[in-house]
Formats: sequence, structure tokens, C-alpha cells
Amino acid sequence: MEKELGISKGLNLINRSTFAMLGSNGEEGYPNIKAMYRMENNGINEIWFSTNTSSKRVCQLLNNPKACVYFADLENFEGLMLVGKIEVLQDDKSRKRLWRDGCEKYYPLGVKDPDYSVLRFTAHKGNYYHGLENVDFKL
Amino acid sequence: MEKELGISKGLNLINRSTFAMLGSNGEEGYPNIKAMYRMENNGINEIWFSTNTSSKRVCQLLNNPKACVYFADLENFEGLMLVGKIEVLQDDKSRKRLWRDGCEKYYPLGVKDPDYSVLRFTAHKGNYYHGLENVDFKL
Repeated sequence: MEKELGISKGLNLINRSTFAMLGSNGEEGYPNIKAMYRMENNGINEIWFSTNTSSKRVCQLLNNPKACVYFADLENFEGLMLVGKIEVLQDDKSRKRLWRDGCEKYYPLGVKDPDYSVLRFTAHKGNYYHGLENVDFKL
Repeated sequence: MEKELGISKGLNLINRSTFAMLGSNGEEGYPNIKAMYRMENNGINEIWFSTNTSSKRVCQLLNNPKACVYFADLENFEGLMLVGKIEVLQDDKSRKRLWRDGCEKYYPLGVKDPDYSVLRFTAHKGNYYHGLENVDFKL
């Protein structure tokens, strides 16, 4: 498979995914995984999530921003793994960008709730596969 | 939530899952994720997979056996993350244990195909969540 086709099919997979798997570096050198709502994306390069500032995941990412984000259509044997770094953001613009009706259930103080953080993941490489076809690419 | 209830609900989630997400330590300190068929499990402590010996994942796991295995029922906001180590096995007993009709599609030389390996993951701790309930446990 050509790199361009892999990226294009990977972007299609992102756009039809509600959830992504976030991989982080946990305690004692063990990887950790958590399912996250995919809130927004900017092409294949940037994936945005929101989360609680007080969460274990934010603490891990502040210590070590190296991460991966994985999308899968399990029935179709299709997957995209992006590798890159995560920034934990609390600026007004980023917080407003991801704020949705109903967010106050998780962040009762609203868009300025100190427990409301935004994660911006920026990929520098990836792998897309579909069945036995497989392509690595740099971004 | 009590530890025992979390483990019991986590085991129920494993038993109704066809796939698991395998987290490993990839290149340059970045975590990696791959969806894997859950072939067998021994309670919540051991999860078994099969894979190609020549795969990138096996190479990573031989270099660094630290891993995590994550099961999720995304619609129900339910998840189980197990943390532990993976052994790459090629003994006859392990390979026969996971061999299924149709495996010859992936391993044309049959159960003794050098490209057929078995992964045995053994967990030492875990986290189970359902909605806003959450419990950590040691195994």
C-alpha cells in the first residue's frame, strides 16, 4: 500500500470513530491504555481529547508526554496507530474549543473549571493496516 | 466499588470480549497499541494470544516484556486494564493449545510453523471501571 493511500484511509477511519485508545507510559515502565472520546481532529496529525486535570492519565502525561493513539474497526480488521506527544492545555481557547453541552456534568464549574483539561496529541509517525495490507509513514 | 466485585465484573468483560488491546513499549520510549484476538484466558490473571513470530510486536516484547492488556465495552463506559508481563512461547503444548481450524491461513506450515508464536500475558495488577465507579487491585 502507498503511504498516501494509508494516510487517506487512516483519516477516514478517524472520522468515523467515536472513541480512540490512548497509550501512555505508566508506573515502573509499563504501558497503560485508556479509551477516550475523540473530540476533534485536525487531519491525521492532531487528535484532541478532554479529561479531568486530576486524573491519573494527566499526571502520567505531564511526567512523560510520549504517547500513542489507536483507532480500530475491529470487524473489518482495520487499524491506525499514531505515535507522538501530548500537551495538557488549559488556555481559554482550547477549553472553549472542546466544550460541549453536557460537559458541566463532569466539570460543574463550567469551562473554567480547574479540573477541566484539554489534551492535544501531535503525531510524528503512524501505521495503517487493513487485512494483511500494512503501511508505515512519517508525518 | 470493592476489589472482589471489580475483579468479578472485569472477568465477565473479558469473557464477552472477542478482542483485546495490547499495549507494549515501542521504539524510543513511545508506547504502542495493537488490537489482538483474545484466544484464551485463565481467570483474570492470564490472557493468551497468538501472533506471527516475525511481527514487530514480538520483537518489542522479546526486548521488553512489560505490557498491558485492555478490554472495553465502549457503549457501556466499561473497561478493564491489566498490567503485567508477556512471554513469547513456541513449545508444542502452548502452540497446540491455541491452534484453531483456519490458523493454517496465517501459518501455512501448521502448528510447528516457525512463524507461529503464542503470547502468554500474566497480570500483576489491574483497574476496572464502569461509569464513574473505579477500582484498582493487585493480583
